[in-house]
Order: sequence, then structure tokens, then C-alpha cells
Amino acid sequence: MKRITTIDELRRARAELNGTVAFVPTMGFLHAGHLTLMRRGLELCDHLVVSVFVNPTQFGPGEDLDNYPRDLKGDVEKCRSVGCEIFFCPRRDHVYTDHHSTTVIVDELDRSLCGPSRPGHFEGVATIVAKLFNIVTPDVAVFGQKDYQQLAIIRRMTRDLNFDIRIEGVPIIREDDGLAMSSRNRYLDDDQRRQALCLSRGLVAAHRAYTDDPSRTVRALLETARRPIEAAPGAHIDYLECVHPQTLMPLDADRPVSDDGALMATAVSIGPARLIDNLRLHEPLPDGPLRSLP
Amino acid sequence: MKRITTIDELRRARAELNGTVAFVPTMGFLHAGHLTLMRRGLELCDHLVVSVFVNPTQFGPGEDLDNYPRDLKGDVEKCRSVGCEIFFCPRRDHVYTDHHSTTVIVDELDRSLCGPSRPGHFEGVATIVAKLFNIVTPDVAVFGQKDYQQLAIIRRMTRDLNFDIRIEGVPIIREDDGLAMSSRNRYLDDDQRRQALCLSRGLVAAHRAYTDDPSRTVRALLETARRPIEAAPGAHIDYLECVHPQTLMPLDADRPVSDDGALMATAVSIGPARLIDNLRLHEPLPDGPLRSLP
Repeated sequence: MKRITTIDELRRARAELNGTVAFVPTMGFLHAGHLTLMRRGLELCDHLVVSVFVNPTQFGPGEDLDNYPRDLKGDVEKCRSVGCEIFFCPRRDHVYTDHHSTTVIVDELDRSLCGPSRPGHFEGVATIVAKLFNIVTPDVAVFGQKDYQQLAIIRRMTRDLNFDIRIEGVPIIREDDGLAMSSRNRYLDDDQRRQALCLSRGLVAAHRAYTDDPSRTVRALLETARRPIEAAPGAHIDYLECVHPQTLMPLDADRPVSDDGALMATAVSIGPARLIDNLRLHEPLPDGPLRSLP
Repeated sequence: MKRITTIDELRRARAELNGTVAFVPTMGFLHAGHLTLMRRGLELCDHLVVSVFVNPTQFGPGEDLDNYPRDLKGDVEKCRSVGCEIFFCPRRDHVYTDHHSTTVIVDELDRSLCGPSRPGHFEGVATIVAKLFNIVTPDVAVFGQKDYQQLAIIRRMTRDLNFDIRIEGVPIIREDDGLAMSSRNRYLDDDQRRQALCLSRGLVAAHRAYTDDPSRTVRALLETARRPIEAAPGAHIDYLECVHPQTLMPLDADRPVSDDGALMATAVSIGPARLIDNLRLHEPLPDGPLRSLP
């Protein structure tokens, strides 16, 4: 595995790869979720490139840029273990040079969910992903469905800007008890870690209520999800929304979920961590820990 | 020469080209200025791709989108005559599909010159160029210096978004009397065509004044340029500015031009046409018709 820090070097190493290339952009502190993305990339392509870059432009004022967990040595080992060929960890001032003044904005999809509470976040994401796409020029790029809105925005950007790249979304990987894996879980102490289960509990409760009776209104489903979350001491709901799975527009609260289905998504602050999770109500509960939640 | 209308077909034809590829994006109604860009492309690369697409998103309300001159048959012949291999004229609804919602914004460089009078214009330009870059994937892209601000913005976008493309700027091509070539010149009747010379007259007057005495203030140089333009009946100045050649920030009017030099640029409406022109005061007057202006 080559460990590369400059853009020129990356382009040269990329040019030497024969066959198809999968790309997994990350902010590092890799966990089993990331490794699943990487393995999926290697199922689809001959080679794998992973980037680790804590992108400052997607953090807002007061967010956790300075404290974002880092473990470059561990990340290198994990990438090597799954068969990654190029590990790219560029310097911040190489990525954003003087007078960097170009921004990629994806309208429409950023109006719900994390959009309003993290202004500028998705511009930062779309811009760094466009940059990395042009640097790495992969055939496939793999993203996790935990960041459902990010995935939707990157799909739209890729289509709109005519990147010749297939965007692959991978289902959420969860801890044994059902908590969605996230680098930010490490912010939690033991008690907060137990409380953090309220996200999956709320989403699963709504899923069961919907499956039990699909004629329930969106408002009723949201109330069902809200109860277990609000029952967790120290959990503060940033948002809990039921949106159209493609447009991400909030569904009419007074009606049942339509034939297009529904994505229920939430962001909850627990102590120092802002955690997100989501679940498609119109699809079977995925195999794994969510099925055995009490 | 292949004449191609769909993006998929373009990608296939592009993949079959061995060697380097130059790209000249245009809005059609090609003139000798465009042909110079194409020849420059073929000096630098093995193959040439030309696109003709009247991009709706770079026209503002009340601008000349619907009347923009078109001559697809003539364009095809001209491209063939210079050795273009792929002529790409996509349909508008193939370029902008439903719910197109991605925009590329280049900040800083759009604050002067055409920026304030054409809100949204450069976003439209940057977005379509980013799209075409991803569709054509050229090694070199060639643009004219008549659209100096556009060229600067595309250079910045190319650098910021890490497109692996060399941006080549080509000096302004002029009619025998000095008028900068433009597809919009065809809007002019005979009398307006004569008046249109005021742009070059004004810029050359400022150039002579600067060369004669570089200690003149920017304000004095602007006044010198303004006089011949205002003397033309029916000419309305949209802007006349003296800016830094790289940052495009207006220079201090009370001081002489600094060592960084100065670009003087103007937009003038004459009848139905909004014409633009520019000249670098700190460089020798280019060979050609400007030298013999009275």
C-alpha cells in the first residue's frame, strides 16, 4: 500500500493502476463501517483508493473540527488489512490553496434534515468530494447510508456535474446493540453510550408502528419515534423528520406515508456528540441488531 | 469529423481518441476568433473537440438568450475546415436534466467588471464549463482573452476543483479596424458598427496615456478612455474599470498603476448589442489593428 500526501504524487500513482478503481473518501478514525465501504469497493473494482482528510469547510463555527478524533497510524493499518492500494492523506494547505474561492452548491436536497442546522456543511461536503473526484478519478465511489442526505447530495452532484463515476451506497453498519457506527461515538462516556441507543429505539418503534398499520399518519409515526428518544436523559433532539426518500422533502404530517415510502431520520445530541441515524419505514427492517431491539 | 448530440456518444468517441485532446467550448455562431482558439488547441494537442451550446443559465432575465445568433451548418463547416474531430452540440434537456440543482460558484473574481451587471452569469459559466470538462475530459481547454474575467474565473475554478486540465488563454482577435470579434457584433447596423469602434479607441487612448507617462493616476487614465466612448452617439457605458490583472479588484483611482500592472476593461451597449473589450496597459500594444488606430 502506498501512503501518499501530495496531489501530484497521487495522480502519478493513480495513473499506474490498470483496471477499475474504487474510492472511499473518509475523515479518518476508521471503524467497521468504513471497512465495509472499502470491501464493497473492492467487490466492484480492481483497485481501492482511500482518502483520510478532516475537511475543515464542512464544519460550522462551534462544531468539533479541532477535536475530531484522529488515529492515522490505526487508519493506515486498517486500510492495508482490507487490501487498499493507495492511502491518500493530503495536507490541508495543499487541498485549499491561497484564495481558494470555488464552492459547489447542491440546492433542494439541503433544505431538510441536517441542512438547516448545519449551514454551509453540505457545500463543504460537495466541494471537497468534487475536488477528490477530480484528483482520484475513480470509476466507483462508495459512501455510507448513515449519512443519507450526504449520499443523496453527492449522487445529485455527480449526475448534475456529469462526473463519470458510479456512486455506491452501503447500508448502515451497527454495533451489536444497534447503535449506528460513527467516529463520533468515541465522544460518549459509558452512560451516554447507553443513552445513545435511543436513536435506534425510536426509529425501530416507528418502523414497527408503520408495519403494523401503514394507514397511521406521519405525525403519529413521528410521535412514536420521539417517545423513546425523549425518554433518554440528556438526549436533545436536533431534528426528527419523516421525508421523501428521494427528494428529502418532509412528508405531510396529516397523511399516511404514500407509495413512494418514507425515510425517518434524526439527529440527537448526547453530551458532546451529535449523532445521526435513519431508517426506511417502507422496507423490511434490515438483518442484524435492529431486529432484536426490545 | 463526428457530429455528436448525446453525452453517452461523446464519451464513447472521446474514449477512442488516442493522444492528447484540446477542447474549445463555444456558444456557436463561430467567427475568426473561435477558429484561432481551435488552431491553438491543435498546436498543443493531437485532437480537437469543439462544443456548441447556447447555455441558458448564463443569460440573465432580459438578456439575449432567445435571439442569440445561431448558424449550426456554418459552425460545422468551420470546425471541419480547421481539423476538429468531434463536434458536440448537445440538446438543452440532455445537459440540464430534471431537478438540476448543482451550481459552481467562484467567489472574489466575480465582484467587479461584468459581475455586478450580470448577476448569476458567471455561476452559469462555471457550472456549464465544469460539466463540459467532465464530459469531454480534455487535456487542454482554450478560451479567448476577450472574456478576460471568464478566463480568470475558469482558471480559478480549474485550480480550486483540481481539474487536471491546462487552461490556455488566447489574445483577442480583432476586425481590420480594431473592433474585437464577437458573435454579438452581428446585432449592429452599419452606423452602430462604426460607433462600436469607440471601445478600442478608448482603451488605446488610455494605453497611450499610460505609456507616455506611467505616473498618471488611474482616474486620469479612466477619464482618457471614457472620452472617446462617450463621444460616440448611442454608446452607453455599462462599466469602464481599471483592475488588477490577477485579482480583478479595482485599482485605487488616486494612485498610478502599480508594478502589478493594470487591465482596463469596458462593457458598452450600442443599440441591441452589449460589447466588451479589454487591454493590459502595462504590456506593449499587441501587433495588429490597434496600432494603426487614429
